[in-house]
Amino acid sequence: MKLRLGLPKGSLQEITLDLFRRAGFNVNLRERSYLPDIDDSELEPMLIRGQEIPGYVSDGTLDAGLAGKDWIEESGVSVREVAELTYAKKGFTPVKWVLAVPQSSRIKTVADLRGKVIATELVNVTKNYLKDHRVKAKVEFSWGATEAKPPKLADAIVELTETGGSLRAHNLRIIDTLLISTTRLIASKESFQNKWKKVKIENLSTLLKGALLAEGKVGLKMNVPDSKIKKILSILPAMKSPTISKLSGKGWSAVETIVDERSARDIIPKLKRAGAEGIIGYPLNKVIY
Amino acid sequence: MKLRLGLPKGSLQEITLDLFRRAGFNVNLRERSYLPDIDDSELEPMLIRGQEIPGYVSDGTLDAGLAGKDWIEESGVSVREVAELTYAKKGFTPVKWVLAVPQSSRIKTVADLRGKVIATELVNVTKNYLKDHRVKAKVEFSWGATEAKPPKLADAIVELTETGGSLRAHNLRIIDTLLISTTRLIASKESFQNKWKKVKIENLSTLLKGALLAEGKVGLKMNVPDSKIKKILSILPAMKSPTISKLSGKGWSAVETIVDERSARDIIPKLKRAGAEGIIGYPLNKVIY
Amino acid sequence: MKLRLGLPKGSLQEITLDLFRRAGFNVNLRERSYLPDIDDSELEPMLIRGQEIPGYVSDGTLDAGLAGKDWIEESGVSVREVAELTYAKKGFTPVKWVLAVPQSSRIKTVADLRGKVIATELVNVTKNYLKDHRVKAKVEFSWGATEAKPPKLADAIVELTETGGSLRAHNLRIIDTLLISTTRLIASKESFQNKWKKVKIENLSTLLKGALLAEGKVGLKMNVPDSKIKKILSILPAMKSPTISKLSGKGWSAVETIVDERSARDIIPKLKRAGAEGIIGYPLNKVIY
Amino acid sequence: MKLRLGLPKGSLQEITLDLFRRAGFNVNLRERSYLPDIDDSELEPMLIRGQEIPGYVSDGTLDAGLAGKDWIEESGVSVREVAELTYAKKGFTPVKWVLAVPQSSRIKTVADLRGKVIATELVNVTKNYLKDHRVKAKVEFSWGATEAKPPKLADAIVELTETGGSLRAHNLRIIDTLLISTTRLIASKESFQNKWKKVKIENLSTLLKGALLAEGKVGLKMNVPDSKIKKILSILPAMKSPTISKLSGKGWSAVETIVDERSARDIIPKLKRAGAEGIIGYPLNKVIY
Amino acid sequence: MKLRLGLPKGSLQEITLDLFRRAGFNVNLRERSYLPDIDDSELEPMLIRGQEIPGYVSDGTLDAGLAGKDWIEESGVSVREVAELTYAKKGFTPVKWVLAVPQSSRIKTVADLRGKVIATELVNVTKNYLKDHRVKAKVEFSWGATEAKPPKLADAIVELTETGGSLRAHNLRIIDTLLISTTRLIASKESFQNKWKKVKIENLSTLLKGALLAEGKVGLKMNVPDSKIKKILSILPAMKSPTISKLSGKGWSAVETIVDERSARDIIPKLKRAGAEGIIGYPLNKVIY
Amino acid sequence: MKLRLGLPKGSLQEITLDLFRRAGFNVNLRERSYLPDIDDSELEPMLIRGQEIPGYVSDGTLDAGLAGKDWIEESGVSVREVAELTYAKKGFTPVKWVLAVPQSSRIKTVADLRGKVIATELVNVTKNYLKDHRVKAKVEFSWGATEAKPPKLADAIVELTETGGSLRAHNLRIIDTLLISTTRLIASKESFQNKWKKVKIENLSTLLKGALLAEGKVGLKMNVPDSKIKKILSILPAMKSPTISKLSGKGWSAVETIVDERSARDIIPKLKRAGAEGIIGYPLNKVIY
Repeated sequence: MKLRLGLPKGSLQEITLDLFRRAGFNVNLRERSYLPDIDDSELEPMLIRGQEIPGYVSDGTLDAGLAGKDWIEESGVSVREVAELTYAKKGFTPVKWVLAVPQSSRIKTVADLRGKVIATELVNVTKNYLKDHRVKAKVEFSWGATEAKPPKLADAIVELTETGGSLRAHNLRIIDTLLISTTRLIASKESFQNKWKKVKIENLSTLLKGALLAEGKVGLKMNVPDSKIKKILSILPAMKSPTISKLSGKGWSAVETIVDERSARDIIPKLKRAGAEGIIGYPLNKVIY
Repeated sequence: MKLRLGLPKGSLQEITLDLFRRAGFNVNLRERSYLPDIDDSELEPMLIRGQEIPGYVSDGTLDAGLAGKDWIEESGVSVREVAELTYAKKGFTPVKWVLAVPQSSRIKTVADLRGKVIATELVNVTKNYLKDHRVKAKVEFSWGATEAKPPKLADAIVELTETGGSLRAHNLRIIDTLLISTTRLIASKESFQNKWKKVKIENLSTLLKGALLAEGKVGLKMNVPDSKIKKILSILPAMKSPTISKLSGKGWSAVETIVDERSARDIIPKLKRAGAEGIIGYPLNKVIY
Repeated sequence: MKLRLGLPKGSLQEITLDLFRRAGFNVNLRERSYLPDIDDSELEPMLIRGQEIPGYVSDGTLDAGLAGKDWIEESGVSVREVAELTYAKKGFTPVKWVLAVPQSSRIKTVADLRGKVIATELVNVTKNYLKDHRVKAKVEFSWGATEAKPPKLADAIVELTETGGSLRAHNLRIIDTLLISTTRLIASKESFQNKWKKVKIENLSTLLKGALLAEGKVGLKMNVPDSKIKKILSILPAMKSPTISKLSGKGWSAVETIVDERSARDIIPKLKRAGAEGIIGYPLNKVIY
Repeated sequence: MKLRLGLPKGSLQEITLDLFRRAGFNVNLRERSYLPDIDDSELEPMLIRGQEIPGYVSDGTLDAGLAGKDWIEESGVSVREVAELTYAKKGFTPVKWVLAVPQSSRIKTVADLRGKVIATELVNVTKNYLKDHRVKAKVEFSWGATEAKPPKLADAIVELTETGGSLRAHNLRIIDTLLISTTRLIASKESFQNKWKKVKIENLSTLLKGALLAEGKVGLKMNVPDSKIKKILSILPAMKSPTISKLSGKGWSAVETIVDERSARDIIPKLKRAGAEGIIGYPLNKVIY
Repeated sequence: MKLRLGLPKGSLQEITLDLFRRAGFNVNLRERSYLPDIDDSELEPMLIRGQEIPGYVSDGTLDAGLAGKDWIEESGVSVREVAELTYAKKGFTPVKWVLAVPQSSRIKTVADLRGKVIATELVNVTKNYLKDHRVKAKVEFSWGATEAKPPKLADAIVELTETGGSLRAHNLRIIDTLLISTTRLIASKESFQNKWKKVKIENLSTLLKGALLAEGKVGLKMNVPDSKIKKILSILPAMKSPTISKLSGKGWSAVETIVDERSARDIIPKLKRAGAEGIIGYPLNKVIY
Repeated sequence: MKLRLGLPKGSLQEITLDLFRRAGFNVNLRERSYLPDIDDSELEPMLIRGQEIPGYVSDGTLDAGLAGKDWIEESGVSVREVAELTYAKKGFTPVKWVLAVPQSSRIKTVADLRGKVIATELVNVTKNYLKDHRVKAKVEFSWGATEAKPPKLADAIVELTETGGSLRAHNLRIIDTLLISTTRLIASKESFQNKWKKVKIENLSTLLKGALLAEGKVGLKMNVPDSKIKKILSILPAMKSPTISKLSGKGWSAVETIVDERSARDIIPKLKRAGAEGIIGYPLNKVIY
C-alpha cells in the first residue's frame, strides 16, 4: 500500500520539505527530479505545481496533497480538508490576495472597477468576487510580474502578498482583501473510504501539525516553592495546564510548560519576581496536544 | 521620444540583460523592480513575462520587445520580426519544443496520440500541430514540472529542451520536434511607421547582433611573408575577407581576421606551418559585418 | 511609553542583535537602515556607534544602551551600569586594551615611553594611564589600522585585542594592560526615576543575562538509584543545587542540573562510574537563576 | 601527562572534528596546520592520513587514534579496538569495500577474476580475499579515481562505496562485498598498561559514543493518566525503560524516553490515540546509557 | 632607493589595489597585514586610513600617497597634487559631501542652521563652510552612521554621497554641496626635489591614469573605402585623431580609434550606414595619450 | 581515429582544464565523471591521477598525456617529452621538491641523514638522490600531510613546495632541492610512429604553448613619428621584432608588439617620453611565435 501524495513545487517547496524533515521524515530531492526520496516506503510523494494539486486530488489521481487554500478555491473542485497548516512562502503566517491599484489611481472601491482591466493569476476567484459585488470588469490572466502592470498594462491587480513589501515597492495601494490563505492537507474522498489510507493521512496530519506547532514555541522549566505555585500558575498562559511534580524533600515543586517564544520574554521576569528559581528555556522539535 | 521596450522576465532575463551590457548599455535592476535602469534616456525598458510580450507589442502597448519565436507562435498575433538573436536560457543555441513520451510507452508516432492526454505550456502550438496531423487528442495546460507528468498525469508532453538533459533524467523519449525557437527582436507595426522609432529599433538590432556575433569569435593577427600570403589566405575561412596591410620595409604583410574560437584551434597550427609568424589571438566585444 | 535604546553599530552589531534574538525578540535590520525592526512596541532601538552611546545615554537623549566599558571610560560621562554582559566581537570573553611596542623596540615598561608617540583610538584612557604613571608622552588619535603604525608612524600603540592574533601578526610585544572591557547595559539616571522605564530596563537585563548564561551551558538529566544520590551530588558542580524528583516505584530518582558544556566532558564519565544511568545532555536557550 | 591522539586527515576529518565538538571539546584547526587546537590540555591531537594511523598506534608512536576498520585490516598491525563509532564520510552508516566490474563485463563471480587486473587502494585486503577464494589475479595499487579505470585500465576494482552513487555513475556492477567498515577508537597496548592513559581513553570513548548515540535520537515527554501507563509503555520501544514520575495530585504521571527520530513518527500517533497528552519532542546533545 | 607610498585602507582599499593591478603591478595583501606585497622592489606601499594620508605625506613620513580631495581639505596640510584619479568607493565618478536635513525639517538654506547641531566626519571643512556663510552653529564629530542622526541626535548632517541612495533611505533632503571630491595622487615637497623619486612618482601617475582611462573605453577598428574616410572621420569623436593605414591593393583603408563604451552604441550604427565594414570592438587594458 | 589523452586528476586538474579552454577547446566535466566532454571528436581525454599517467603512456595504454616531471622521474619509465608547459597547482611557475628538516634539527646537510627516517611521496627519486650522495637512510612512503611529520613521525621529509608557505608554517628548514618540476606533454613512442597521431599531438602542443605564452603578456600599440622609430625600438624588448606599418600621409607609423605585463609598467613611461602617442594596451588570448 502506498499513499500518493502531491507536494507543491516552486515557492512553497523548500519550506514544505523542511516541514516534513522536522516531522521526522528524511526527504531529499535529487537534481532535476520531481520525485523526492523519502525514508517511508508507504509514502509516494510527487512535486506538482500547487495550482494543479487540488485537481489531481479531486479526481483521485492523488490520494492526498498539500495545497494553498487560494488554489483550492481557484480550481473550484471538491476535496476533503484534513488539516490547516499555517505557513506560506516566507514563514508561519497566512498570505493574503488583495485588490490593489496605483497610489495615484482614482479607483477607491471595488465599485470603481466597472469597465476596467484587472490582471491576476487567480482569475476565477477574482471573477466570483466581482460577481458578488455586481461589478462588470475585464479579468486578464497574468503569467507573473503582476505588480508591475499597473498603470500601463492593467488598471488594477489581484495579487498575493505576505509582507506588503512588493506592493509598496511598486507604489500600489490595497483596496480590498479577497482571500486569506493558508496551506491545507487535502485528501480525496476515495482515500478516506480506505481505512489504511485514512489512518496514514491522519498520522501525517498529527506529525505535520506537531512540527508546525513547535515552531516559535519554547519549553520552560522552573523550581517553585509550594507556597507560590498558585501565583506562578496565574502568570503562565492558560492554553494548556502545566506539568507539576514534587521535588525530593524540601517543599519545592518543578513546574514545566510550553510557551510562545515571544511571550516568554514577558513571562520570565514575572516568574522570577514571583519566586520561581532556576528557570530554564529549552528548544522543542514537536508539540502535540 | 521614448521607445517602450519589453524584455523577458524569468529564465531569459539574466542573459538578455547581459546581452544589453555587452552591446554597450549600462543596465541594472533594483531588487523587486521590473523597470530596469538604463543609461539611455530614449529607451524605456520593462520586464514582462516572455509569454505576454508578443501580445503587448502586437496591440501597440509596447513599441518593441524581445520574445521567443515559441511564444510569438503560441500567442498567434501579428508582429514584425526585426532580428533573429540566437540565444536561449543556457547559451547561444536555439531551443526545441519536442513531443516526448516515457521510454516504455507504446506511443511511437504522433498518430498514436489519438485519444491521449498531452500536457504542455504551449497549448495552441500543440493543438495546431495535432490538427496538421489530423489527430484528435486532449491538450491540457501545464503550469510547469511537465517532464514529471508522464505516465501518471499525462500520456505525452510537449516540452522545451536545450540539452535534452531533463528529458533523459525523466526517462522520456522524443518522438517529434514541433518548433525550433530562437529569440527575436520584434516591433509593432505602428512603431515602424514612425521614423524615429524605426531608426532606434534598427540601431538596437545592429548593436545586439554585433554583441551576439562577437560571442565565441576571436581576432587573429599575424605577420606573413608576401610570398606566402596566398597560401595563408587559403587556410583562413572564406566568411569575410581578411584585412591585409604592408609592413614597413621588408617584404612582409600583416594579416588580420576574425574566426570562430572553435575553428581557431584547427587553423592556427596550419597557419604556423604555412609560414605565418607572431600569430596572436585577442578577444572581441563586438563584430558588425 | 517607549524605551529609547542605543545598540552598538559596527563590530558588536551582529552579536548584539543575535543576543536579542536569543533573548526572545524578533529583531531585523533592513538594508541601509539604522533603526532595527523589533516585535516589542515598547522598545525603540537605534544603532549608534559604540563610541557615542555613553554620551547620548548620559545626557538623556537615550534611556538606555549597550556599550563597552572601554568607551564608557573614554567618554568620561556618568551613567548607571545595570548589567555586565560578557561578550565582545568574537565571542563570550572580555577584550583587553593593551600597550604594545615592536618586538625589537627598546621600550620595556611604561616609563620608557617618555617623549614618545603613542597612537590609539582611546586617547583619554591612554592619557589618564600616562598621568597615573607620571609619564609625559604624545598621544595621537588613530583612525584605525593602528597595529601597522609602529615603528614608522608611532613608537607604541594602545590597542584592543581579543585573541592577540593581530598583535602577533604585526610583531608587536605587549607591555601592559590598560583596561579589561566587557559590554554593559547602561541607563540614564532619569530613566531609573521613571518606574515604568526602570522595570522595563530590569526585565531587559534579566532576559539578556538569561540568554548569555545559556551560552556554553547544557542541561544534564539522569536516573540515579536512591542509594547513590549523595555520591552523584558530590560530583556535580556546587554552583546551583540540582533538581531531584522520585521516580515511580523502584527506588530511583531523577536528577537534573545545568553544567558548563566544557565541564560536562569531565563530569559525565564520573557520573557513569558512580552509577548514574540514562544520562542525557540537552541544549538550553535560557538560564535564569 | 598527555595522550597522543591520531585523528584522520582528509575525508573523515571534518566529521571527526564535529564529533569531538559535540562531545564537548572546543577544537579548531588553523590554516595549513595539522595540529588542532583543543581546550583539553591532556590531549595532544594530530591529523594524520587514516591509512597511517594504525601503524603509528601499533608501534607506540601514538597512544590512541581514530581509524577505519578498513585501514586497520590493510595495515595488518595489532591494536586494541576500544570502541566502534559508526560514522563515515557522508554520515552515520558504515561503508563497504566492494568488488565491482563494468555492467557489460563477463565477470560474474570472484572465480572469473583469474588472470585479470584488479585496481584498488586496499591492496593487502584484496590479496587476502583472493587467496581465501584461491584465485590468482594481478592486484595493482591505484592512486585514486579507481572507478574510472574499468574497462580500459583494469578489469575489476575493489573500491569503497557509501551510497553506491559513484559506482552507478560509472556503470559498474557489484559482485561481492569484501569488508564492511566503521570508524574505531584504537589504542596501543602500552597505553592500556598505563592507568592514567587507560582512564583517559575510556572517558574519551564514553563521550564520543554519547555524542554519536544522540545523533538521530530525540527526547519524548508526555503526560499519561495512570490507568493508561501500561498501554503507553507497550508502544514505546523496549530499548531502555522510560522514566516515569508522578505528577502533582490528579492521577497523572509524566513519561519520558528517548527514541529514534525515525521511529518517533510511527510512535507519536499511536501514543496520542492511546491517551497520552501534551507530547513534546526535544533535541538531545548526548545520550549515555 | 624606495618610494614610501600610502594607500587608503578601508572603503577605497579594494578599488585602489585593483587599479594598481590594472596598471601592471602584482599586488597582494596577506590576511591581517597592512603592508601589501608588490612585485616592484622600488615601491614600499603601506595601507593607512585615508584620513591620515595627507598628514603623513605633508610631514615627509611618506613620499607619496593616494587620498581623497575631501581629506586633503579636512587635514588642512600642504601637499603636491600630482594627478587627479576619478574614482571612488563604488565606481569611476566623484563623490559629493552634502549638507542634508530631514525631509520634514524647516531648514531650507544654510542660513537656517544658526544655533543648530550639525553632525559630520568632516568637521573642519564644515566649520570653514559655515564661516564662509557667516553662520554660527555647533559642529559635532560623528563616528559614523551619521545619516541616522537627524532629527533625534542632530539637526543636520554633512555627509558623503555617491548615488544618493543612503540619503533617500533615511528621508534626508540635500540643501547644499560643500565639496566634490576625487582621489588624488599626492607627493611631499621633499620627494619632488629628489630626481629619482620625482620620476618614479610621475611614472606611477602615467600608469595609474592609463589604467583608469581604459576603464569604460573600447577599441574600434573598421575597414573603410577611401572615398568615405572623410565622412567616417566626421562621425568619430574629435578627442584624439584616429589611426589610418592603407590596406593592400584595393582602395580601402583601416581606421582605428578609441571611444567611450557608452558612445560606441551611438557611433556604430552611424559608421555602418556611412559605409564602414567589418567593424570590431575590442577591450583595452590601458590608454595613454 | 582518436587520440587517447591522460589529464591529471586532482591538484592540477582545474588549471589543466582551464588551459585547454584558453587553447580553444570547450571542455566540461560532469559531476562524478572522469571522462571530460570535449568538443573535438578526435580527442578522448581521461582524468587519471598524475602519478599514474607516465606509466600508462609508457606502456601504450594512452597515446599522450600531461604529467609533472616529478612523477615522470618517480615512475622511471621511458616516454617522449613533446613540450614543457610551465605551470603548476598555484600558477605559472615551476614547483620544487625539497629536502627539509625542523628548524631546530641538527641535520644540516644530506650527509647528516645517515640512519635517519625520511618521509616522502616521491620514494624512488629520494632513494636515487641518497644513492648519488652515498647516504644510507630509511625512506618511508607518506600518504600525505608530510609536512606535519617531523620531528615526531620522521627526521626529514622530501616534499613539494610552490611558495614555501606550508614549510614555513610547519617550521621546516630547506636543506637541498632534489628536483625542479614543470608539467610536460608526453607521448608514447608508438604514437609518434603514427603520422596522424604525431600531427595531432604537435598541434596540441602548439595550442597549449600558445595559450600559456599569452598568460601574463599584453599587446602594446602606439603611433610614432618616423623620426623617433629607432629610439622607440631601442626601448622595446628584443624578444621578437615589433610590427611596424606606415600610417596614412603624415610621417607617422604604427608600432605594435607584445610585452610582459610586468615589464609594460617600465616600458610605457619611457615610450611616452620618447615620443610615442596614443599608446594602448590590450589583452591577448594566444601568442604563437
